[in-house]
Amino acid sequence: MTDLILTTFDWVPEAPRGYVRDLRVRWALEEAELPYRVNSVPFRDRGIDHFSHQPFGQVPWLTDRDISIFESGAILLHLGELSSKLMPTEPHDRSDVKEWLFAAIASVEAASQPWSFFKFSGDTDETPMRKFFDSFLEARLKHMETVLAGHEWLVGTFSIADILMADVLRLVDRFDGLAVYPACRDYVARATARPSFVKAHADQMAHFAAAD
Amino acid sequence: MTDLILTTFDWVPEAPRGYVRDLRVRWALEEAELPYRVNSVPFRDRGIDHFSHQPFGQVPWLTDRDISIFESGAILLHLGELSSKLMPTEPHDRSDVKEWLFAAIASVEAASQPWSFFKFSGDTDETPMRKFFDSFLEARLKHMETVLAGHEWLVGTFSIADILMADVLRLVDRFDGLAVYPACRDYVARATARPSFVKAHADQMAHFAAAD
Repeated sequence: MTDLILTTFDWVPEAPRGYVRDLRVRWALEEAELPYRVNSVPFRDRGIDHFSHQPFGQVPWLTDRDISIFESGAILLHLGELSSKLMPTEPHDRSDVKEWLFAAIASVEAASQPWSFFKFSGDTDETPMRKFFDSFLEARLKHMETVLAGHEWLVGTFSIADILMADVLRLVDRFDGLAVYPACRDYVARATARPSFVKAHADQMAHFAAAD
Repeated sequence: MTDLILTTFDWVPEAPRGYVRDLRVRWALEEAELPYRVNSVPFRDRGIDHFSHQPFGQVPWLTDRDISIFESGAILLHLGELSSKLMPTEPHDRSDVKEWLFAAIASVEAASQPWSFFKFSGDTDETPMRKFFDSFLEARLKHMETVLAGHEWLVGTFSIADILMADVLRLVDRFDGLAVYPACRDYVARATARPSFVKAHADQMAHFAAAD
């Protein structure tokens, strides 16, 4: 028996496979070597129980005994507090990990997600808004390039901040958005070469493939 | 003397005044009645010292003795850990506050920010991408309406999660995006009627006006 249960969809279309956010949680659980099991909820028919755990009808959520947590960032923070393999113990470093956890979402993903929606859409019109979102992402990646140049990980050793940041940058890389940011690209390559990422990714792919 | 120093820009253009994110931090500090002082950095000439505290060249950041924290979400979490007026002490409630802190950014602001960029641009073309971002925000507000209906605050008593969520929804309200979401609109009205918000907002407006 394990206390930790990760819930994700039973199935998703091809395009998001390998990028569904339960990956972040699987990755962290593998890094920390915490025992867990994976539970599925219907992708097509999201019921009251689903919304009681995840009020936006999304995934993932994690239950740890009688605590239920949604939002991959909040789940990573919870797991970080369970294992020093995910979050260092020194107070300054812990504070830095938390700020980078928020920065990955609020500073980088806030710019990369709208950009990726344009890419996903297949729309190539050079509208002013498209140019705006391109510039918005550039402004963030330019600074991430400086941050990552010469650093293996964001805060000393590998942490939950790297799981979130690398996963955010990985989606940019998927659409070749890191071509002129070698430090960002190398960081993604380094993070996704970790055995825990490889296992988490393979497990997610197998999970969704099993439902086809 | 105080341990807490909030750093923001010395000046910003008219449009963002009242919405610069130091407001979230001022609001929290006022709610907790924590002593603090406000420090300014140049808006027009962002130097190496600025980037050493905030790697994207943005504001705010907070220093608490020898700890420097950027990202409003991370700063709110830090302040929440200093005061039970900002974060409840009961473990389940604390976990819920943290998840809503992330949800305000990753689920709601992730949708409201691109939508607000379209509004700010003054562009009214009904392009497919514009419609996509309108629908993306609607999908999130529809569920927030359910969450907020019949609840005064997100997690029992007022917390840092409400500061962040109400500030995110306030920008939607500015562009009349809450017209068909009365529970969201009432929540913003209730949050912004709090004396701590009123003071924080007035202080930010006065801070930037002083530099004109």
